[in-house]
Amino acid sequence: MQGTMKTAVMTGLKELEWEQRPIPVPSKGEVLVRVEHVGICGSDLHYYEQGAIGDFKVSFPFVLGHEAAGTVVEIGEGVTDLAVGDRVAMEPGKTCGQCIYCKTGRYNLCPDVEFFATPPIDGVFCEYVAHPASLCFRLPENMDTIEGALIEPLAVGFHAANQGGARLGQKAVVMGAGCIGLMTLLALKAFGVTEVYVVDVMENRLAKAKELGAAGIINGKEQDAVEELMRATAGKGMDLCIDTAGSQITMNQCIGAAAKGAAVVFVGYSAQDQVSLDINNALNKELTFKTVFRYRNLYPLAIEAVSQGLNVKGVVTDFFKFDDVRKAMDLSVSNKAEIVKAVLSLR
Amino acid sequence: MQGTMKTAVMTGLKELEWEQRPIPVPSKGEVLVRVEHVGICGSDLHYYEQGAIGDFKVSFPFVLGHEAAGTVVEIGEGVTDLAVGDRVAMEPGKTCGQCIYCKTGRYNLCPDVEFFATPPIDGVFCEYVAHPASLCFRLPENMDTIEGALIEPLAVGFHAANQGGARLGQKAVVMGAGCIGLMTLLALKAFGVTEVYVVDVMENRLAKAKELGAAGIINGKEQDAVEELMRATAGKGMDLCIDTAGSQITMNQCIGAAAKGAAVVFVGYSAQDQVSLDINNALNKELTFKTVFRYRNLYPLAIEAVSQGLNVKGVVTDFFKFDDVRKAMDLSVSNKAEIVKAVLSLR
Amino acid sequence: MQGTMKTAVMTGLKELEWEQRPIPVPSKGEVLVRVEHVGICGSDLHYYEQGAIGDFKVSFPFVLGHEAAGTVVEIGEGVTDLAVGDRVAMEPGKTCGQCIYCKTGRYNLCPDVEFFATPPIDGVFCEYVAHPASLCFRLPENMDTIEGALIEPLAVGFHAANQGGARLGQKAVVMGAGCIGLMTLLALKAFGVTEVYVVDVMENRLAKAKELGAAGIINGKEQDAVEELMRATAGKGMDLCIDTAGSQITMNQCIGAAAKGAAVVFVGYSAQDQVSLDINNALNKELTFKTVFRYRNLYPLAIEAVSQGLNVKGVVTDFFKFDDVRKAMDLSVSNKAEIVKAVLSLR
Amino acid sequence: MQGTMKTAVMTGLKELEWEQRPIPVPSKGEVLVRVEHVGICGSDLHYYEQGAIGDFKVSFPFVLGHEAAGTVVEIGEGVTDLAVGDRVAMEPGKTCGQCIYCKTGRYNLCPDVEFFATPPIDGVFCEYVAHPASLCFRLPENMDTIEGALIEPLAVGFHAANQGGARLGQKAVVMGAGCIGLMTLLALKAFGVTEVYVVDVMENRLAKAKELGAAGIINGKEQDAVEELMRATAGKGMDLCIDTAGSQITMNQCIGAAAKGAAVVFVGYSAQDQVSLDINNALNKELTFKTVFRYRNLYPLAIEAVSQGLNVKGVVTDFFKFDDVRKAMDLSVSNKAEIVKAVLSLR
Repeated sequence: MQGTMKTAVMTGLKELEWEQRPIPVPSKGEVLVRVEHVGICGSDLHYYEQGAIGDFKVSFPFVLGHEAAGTVVEIGEGVTDLAVGDRVAMEPGKTCGQCIYCKTGRYNLCPDVEFFATPPIDGVFCEYVAHPASLCFRLPENMDTIEGALIEPLAVGFHAANQGGARLGQKAVVMGAGCIGLMTLLALKAFGVTEVYVVDVMENRLAKAKELGAAGIINGKEQDAVEELMRATAGKGMDLCIDTAGSQITMNQCIGAAAKGAAVVFVGYSAQDQVSLDINNALNKELTFKTVFRYRNLYPLAIEAVSQGLNVKGVVTDFFKFDDVRKAMDLSVSNKAEIVKAVLSLR
Repeated sequence: MQGTMKTAVMTGLKELEWEQRPIPVPSKGEVLVRVEHVGICGSDLHYYEQGAIGDFKVSFPFVLGHEAAGTVVEIGEGVTDLAVGDRVAMEPGKTCGQCIYCKTGRYNLCPDVEFFATPPIDGVFCEYVAHPASLCFRLPENMDTIEGALIEPLAVGFHAANQGGARLGQKAVVMGAGCIGLMTLLALKAFGVTEVYVVDVMENRLAKAKELGAAGIINGKEQDAVEELMRATAGKGMDLCIDTAGSQITMNQCIGAAAKGAAVVFVGYSAQDQVSLDINNALNKELTFKTVFRYRNLYPLAIEAVSQGLNVKGVVTDFFKFDDVRKAMDLSVSNKAEIVKAVLSLR
Repeated sequence: MQGTMKTAVMTGLKELEWEQRPIPVPSKGEVLVRVEHVGICGSDLHYYEQGAIGDFKVSFPFVLGHEAAGTVVEIGEGVTDLAVGDRVAMEPGKTCGQCIYCKTGRYNLCPDVEFFATPPIDGVFCEYVAHPASLCFRLPENMDTIEGALIEPLAVGFHAANQGGARLGQKAVVMGAGCIGLMTLLALKAFGVTEVYVVDVMENRLAKAKELGAAGIINGKEQDAVEELMRATAGKGMDLCIDTAGSQITMNQCIGAAAKGAAVVFVGYSAQDQVSLDINNALNKELTFKTVFRYRNLYPLAIEAVSQGLNVKGVVTDFFKFDDVRKAMDLSVSNKAEIVKAVLSLR
Repeated sequence: MQGTMKTAVMTGLKELEWEQRPIPVPSKGEVLVRVEHVGICGSDLHYYEQGAIGDFKVSFPFVLGHEAAGTVVEIGEGVTDLAVGDRVAMEPGKTCGQCIYCKTGRYNLCPDVEFFATPPIDGVFCEYVAHPASLCFRLPENMDTIEGALIEPLAVGFHAANQGGARLGQKAVVMGAGCIGLMTLLALKAFGVTEVYVVDVMENRLAKAKELGAAGIINGKEQDAVEELMRATAGKGMDLCIDTAGSQITMNQCIGAAAKGAAVVFVGYSAQDQVSLDINNALNKELTFKTVFRYRNLYPLAIEAVSQGLNVKGVVTDFFKFDDVRKAMDLSVSNKAEIVKAVLSLR
């Protein structure tokens, strides 16, 4: 496809400018996708505000956005599984396929991954993207591209559930009711976890969690979360505790609320690199701690779950037109409490 | 068997007195064992010095000792698997067999366990003990009861190796070259781990580790352990890191030296309840943390490994006669650097 | 509780007679249960008709029945978890708690198990039974004792699902729509398996499967089951194939319909000891075969699933009063096609 | 590298002719390897004699050979991990890296694999081969290219051991003492399996097994293998049974000799597609059956094990010069009993 496309380019901290860039040409094995919806992720906001996450530092100009879905408009050489008109969710990381991590099925740890909107790779705040067909997952008829864009954060929730060995009959708690916390709640429910409790300190988020199926919600500012969780299990403790809040308090609540032999999953990065943990208590209970770095092999599962009825759209609190991307970013930054999840619409 | 037996009874902090107590009578399913060797464990020293470990508080009089082996001298009703004259290693924990932990094979987490020398249950600093036959494991002909007594700490090492998924071809590091660190080294070698590095700050312990098969030893006071371990793996990191030292420094060295996707196992309790950990680094590498509380189902494996040649006796630095138990305890307390492992001989 | 109780005693092949037997007295750790519902299982019918299953041979008199639920009417010494009036499902196998299988959590393989209605242990075609409290699982308020009695066959279905690694997003097939096949269908649905196909040769059974949630039903006499299952997966094959029919045809259909790398679970015993299997095809696909012997640690899960809405009662086709037990047995034998599952009501 | 190379080309059944073919040019990511040793595999003999294995049919001309090692003589674009002069073992299968099997770490099931000497892909009975650097594994200094060529069949043995969950302390049996049986024996020993028994019907093969570390050997023609294996375990049965013979008799011996709850691994293809198995006995013991199709992610492990001392060269019975390839093939076919493993030397 000839021509240029609108691209929202980050030119400095909290600076976004429009650029016309050439529409990319799909290489062998790639398809060209007309982007329709892009979710705004916490990492997008972090780069926007601070220009870096850990060792990843933005060099301007830079394009944000990695949670995208759209419609295939052109097919590259050798692509047989997709056709023009297919609506797809795009998994954002291109991996090498050759390293020990790729070969053993843990491609999320590939050191050579090229991941949308992780410096120096540009993201998808733009109208078109050329992407490997093997990373474009067709959406079934009963799903739209809003849901398609949300598959990315939902995959994080599913990976957290997977890492923790979530299963039918368990009781679990999720610390934090932000986007990833709510996605984790949805994933746990989809895995058959009987009762999922959600802990946060903001009432609007807790209300959202309740609406999305939490068996119980706990305001950590008003109640002793560990005590409440112990009460909910007659003193036995939770089978699975997942922290998405990244705070020392909630990580230790996971340890405190866990049953003997249970799993604790850390998903949320901490604002401090060092976190003080009750390790002796963890040893007494012989807990297992798993951590989450992105996800692997979960797009098909997440799409299937949404197709079967998982209310992933229920997580979205705000929609913005692509033309309003700057407003979307600024509001998301200034109003983190209210805007749990914003999505850009390009169509 | 009629009569009384010599028993070393703790009557106060750092107080041991001799008592004559009745020789116990084996109940149904039990055997009476003439104790021949008992290892002195760090927990024995802890109770001796401080009277408590965590919530477990000693009430005097109390009998220490839980690493024991001896010879069967009497058979209780219904015992068919053992005979008088069999030499056995005794697994020290009697569990309920009914709770969810017992039923699912994780009996080390049984809340109703009765464990030698864990208050209020008396230990085996005495000549005879009646114990369930199902917890008395026959030693093969090529093993003696010194080795039998050492099966207990070796089982901890094997559980650590198990929890970490130790296997052929890996590179691993053990932090701490005390008794449990050395036992873990032995277990890792037995599991086929190709290269085991050992980190400590005492030269005599490191020399012991080298003697017992460490591929490399690192004095953490003189070298940057993480840097050395990275060099040993061409920057890839260790497949498995096991901390037996229980210090904040070594736990973080485990995180720093681990390869992406690797497992870290915490065995050693910390002197502080709270330990500050580099959690963000752990998330970046998607590490798994396992913890160790005693062991389960490992006596047969550990006995087999020793029978095949594992040099468990190489860990022992000091032998004492039972009559010298007070001296053994006092020296072990006062000279922790030199006495890595002491064993009492009752015969 | 003093007195006698009605007991249906098998006195010969296809012979059942009433006897008044003393109401048992609960020992230490046991409770006395007033039996309210007992399911009739294929093994009961087998013993009734043929007097033996494999090496298990009935000696008369013998009492059948092992799928039972009722109300606690008396508490033995030391029981603290249950109270008079609790309604419970009874897990039928008492295991030793000491052998390597019990200790490692695989108690269903305990060689010393005493299992209701497996010779020489009497079953529960009677009004009262004394049973260990640890094998009596309290039913929540929203469940009745019909559902309680059905937990036993449902646990077999859950074990089959477990052994096969059933999980969200898979497609699976169940061969055979008898009681165990339908229970397996329910278990797979509860585990989140997206689409479960059921193959049988009887229309009434297939209709039942459809009613209980099968995504598709296939009459193996009229359609090529493997071809249909391949079509349903666009040629990829099923992620999980479970045979409950025990026929050479259906076992090979499992192999034929399985995706590469998939799991096949054999639940149903074959009428012939030797079954001819397409092993080379299994090697080409690198299939895993699991087998099922009873179940372990699944009563709480199965009860939870029913409490959450699993329609286990939907499997029952016929109810009989206890007084009509002989008729129930005879009709179940003579009319196997129609009577998928019969339940006796003792109240 | 310019020029031509000697290539042994199969031109018909049991027909091999010399051809001069152009030396291949390494593409991006590939290296050019001067082949030094090539093992002759049972599948080579099968294609040579019969022109097909299952659905894989040879079209002439065709080049056999897939167990190869040699020295890197040229480096393709972008290769950084290997240098000219490196000696390497070549893993023979190029996989797509994109399909669900590749992405989940089970690349041995990739439907688009291109595997040396599996029609229509030519093998390595030739002097040079261009191969992806990621499939060329550097040999340590203490290994030669004979050992390098043997890594391929050894990897099958390790995959069998892996699939069966082989580990320290187990007792295992290997049915068949041909090349793959002996490689499996070596792999089991390397994994720490305490006692490995080997069953065959040829004395020379059994002697080889004994020499390579079998704890016991059983001539299945002269002894009742199941009875002997039961005796060796005091009636408990083997923890792991691996069939490499592919016969109905040995597969059923695996079932018969297995302990309750044990794993049986089928490695050898059967001469008949249908094999009659004692499935009811397998259900009674709740056995798990795993199958083996090639291997995955095992070259580094196998190389490490040989470097540590595994006597893989001990399996070779015959060496031939490349010029004698026709004789090597014909003798291997005519004298299967004596020639357990032949290797071609190209240097």
